[in-house]
Amino acid sequence: MKVDGRPYHSLWVEPDGWSVGAIDQRRLPHEFVIARLTDCEEAAQAIRSMLVRGAPLIGATAAYGVALAMRSDVSDAALDRAYEALIATRPTAINLKWALDEMWKVLAPLPPSARLAAAYARAGEIAEQDIAINKGIGENGLAVIEAIRARKKPGERVNVLTHCNAGWLATVDWGTATAPIYMAHDRGWPIHVWVDETRPRNQGASLTAWELAHHGVAHTVIADNTGGHLMQHGMVDLVIVGTDRVTANGDVCNKIGTYLKALAAHDNGVPFYVALPSPTIDFSIGDGRKIPIEQRSADEVTDMTGRTADGRIETVRVVPEGSPVANYAFDVTPARLVTGLITERGVLRPDRDALASAFPERAGKR
Amino acid sequence: MKVDGRPYHSLWVEPDGWSVGAIDQRRLPHEFVIARLTDCEEAAQAIRSMLVRGAPLIGATAAYGVALAMRSDVSDAALDRAYEALIATRPTAINLKWALDEMWKVLAPLPPSARLAAAYARAGEIAEQDIAINKGIGENGLAVIEAIRARKKPGERVNVLTHCNAGWLATVDWGTATAPIYMAHDRGWPIHVWVDETRPRNQGASLTAWELAHHGVAHTVIADNTGGHLMQHGMVDLVIVGTDRVTANGDVCNKIGTYLKALAAHDNGVPFYVALPSPTIDFSIGDGRKIPIEQRSADEVTDMTGRTADGRIETVRVVPEGSPVANYAFDVTPARLVTGLITERGVLRPDRDALASAFPERAGKR
Repeated sequence: MKVDGRPYHSLWVEPDGWSVGAIDQRRLPHEFVIARLTDCEEAAQAIRSMLVRGAPLIGATAAYGVALAMRSDVSDAALDRAYEALIATRPTAINLKWALDEMWKVLAPLPPSARLAAAYARAGEIAEQDIAINKGIGENGLAVIEAIRARKKPGERVNVLTHCNAGWLATVDWGTATAPIYMAHDRGWPIHVWVDETRPRNQGASLTAWELAHHGVAHTVIADNTGGHLMQHGMVDLVIVGTDRVTANGDVCNKIGTYLKALAAHDNGVPFYVALPSPTIDFSIGDGRKIPIEQRSADEVTDMTGRTADGRIETVRVVPEGSPVANYAFDVTPARLVTGLITERGVLRPDRDALASAFPERAGKR
Repeated sequence: MKVDGRPYHSLWVEPDGWSVGAIDQRRLPHEFVIARLTDCEEAAQAIRSMLVRGAPLIGATAAYGVALAMRSDVSDAALDRAYEALIATRPTAINLKWALDEMWKVLAPLPPSARLAAAYARAGEIAEQDIAINKGIGENGLAVIEAIRARKKPGERVNVLTHCNAGWLATVDWGTATAPIYMAHDRGWPIHVWVDETRPRNQGASLTAWELAHHGVAHTVIADNTGGHLMQHGMVDLVIVGTDRVTANGDVCNKIGTYLKALAAHDNGVPFYVALPSPTIDFSIGDGRKIPIEQRSADEVTDMTGRTADGRIETVRVVPEGSPVANYAFDVTPARLVTGLITERGVLRPDRDALASAFPERAGKR
């Protein structure tokens, strides 16, 4: 999508043909800074520090991390080390494991001398596949929006609420939750997005608002506490969120607070959709309560970084010194609260049969 | 309650016998600053700017605002002007109207020359009554906590989740939601409070955490998004929140986001209690959806104020320039999601009969 009129992906191979460029998402929305990843450890650190984030983008970055590792050592041991270093960066997003498994399946059987080229080729495919999948999600999600639009007066806007950033910044391009939104906007349909701020890291306020603004999509930033009130008053037509992992049963793990919005949607008869590429499905787990939930640093809650009135970037502490903090990064929304899963192969019921029928090639492999 | 070992109320008459002292809650938790209110307009401005906040404290401040007005003019017109100026400061908390009506009922029939003394006397009674009511709420809420404690192993802590600040800072002393917590703590019962940060104004992180820490109560600050996850995992034994207005039907208007926690409590079988002094009941409204919901300035969402690592107080913008913001300050939790209303006259079912039976003298007056 576009930044100041120029098209970008969130991750790319630089013109040197090997180093990996990425938008440093920790600096947005205040500064647009490109990072250059030159080895596996830098790729791992980019994921760990959330320079890149979002389940699909984490997967693509990990794939390139393996490719970068192959530049200095193509041995079996080096492949194993890269896998282990990258898998340990974040525990919740299943795309990370999916991408690393894909890389391992391609590279492990090859003679070491063939691994470097194959690694870049497969990582490139994973990135291209992500874009294609998200286009598919967009087209399938567009039908959901069209059905709501058809019940409105001409010109009346469709109000979508989203949580966190499942936008193009969370993927290589298009986004998952945002793909239908961008497509609707590009067709000239009147659409407006309620953007949950998404504490503690503010991905909604800093990333989703930023990318929607750059693409010209109407939106309003709200505190995470606000969505229930909006739904009670008919101000939300549908919710679309992304996800870090969907179980075989259709339980949805996503950014902390998603479950609260799903409850509010259910209580007010607002459809609650989850947009996901198939690599986000974890067929090895049924019950979402078994997904490991990452706990992150307290300073994400206690400290806030932003721009002062005179343009400096400052970090301020908002919680009193000495007050303990807990920081769970994700929660699980049970399938019963999900209206549908918007995938590249259609909008699916959140249950085992629908998921396994749509993705038989993945459901069979545990 | 105590600040650095010294007992404080949140509002008091200064030793000069007429000016009103108050803790400037906009400066907490980083600075402990006392404000001095010397006329009605300063009292109105203190409420409007949230120097003082919390439904019961707003009521007490408004009462003293009328008393301050009487210092310069005791005419009928001056009484009317004070009422009008103060009622216009905040739209949602019903205690404001209650306190102003109480003042008017006492002062209007009096000869003007008797009004000044009577105003201070009645305002003092309102403040004292608030403390007594909150003690009653504490004792009634203590029985709720005791029942949960009785089902635990000896020494195992009772986990309370609260939203916003319904602590002693929101009242003259004790608080509403916190009164049972302080009493349980003072008895040596193991109790721990999950403190919702409470965006956008962070009253949980800045006020509730601050006052619990000063009184020595174990607590953990969490992002507002976190409560549902904690409840799913059995980490919350009960929720206690305050309220700005309870309707005759038992619908509860409170800080934005309360409704989401009530939904999560209901979904997980966690008891959800609302602590309130009877002046918070609005018998003139049945359906909570009729309560006016205050919309506040966008900068409460876009800007965050805190302390930098080197000790300066700075305000930083966290939302990109040009992204619109909505800021609804309250939401309404329907009575069906409320386990009980903890009042000074007992723990009541959230319905018209229970409220009217407990407070017949108020239910009769519309």
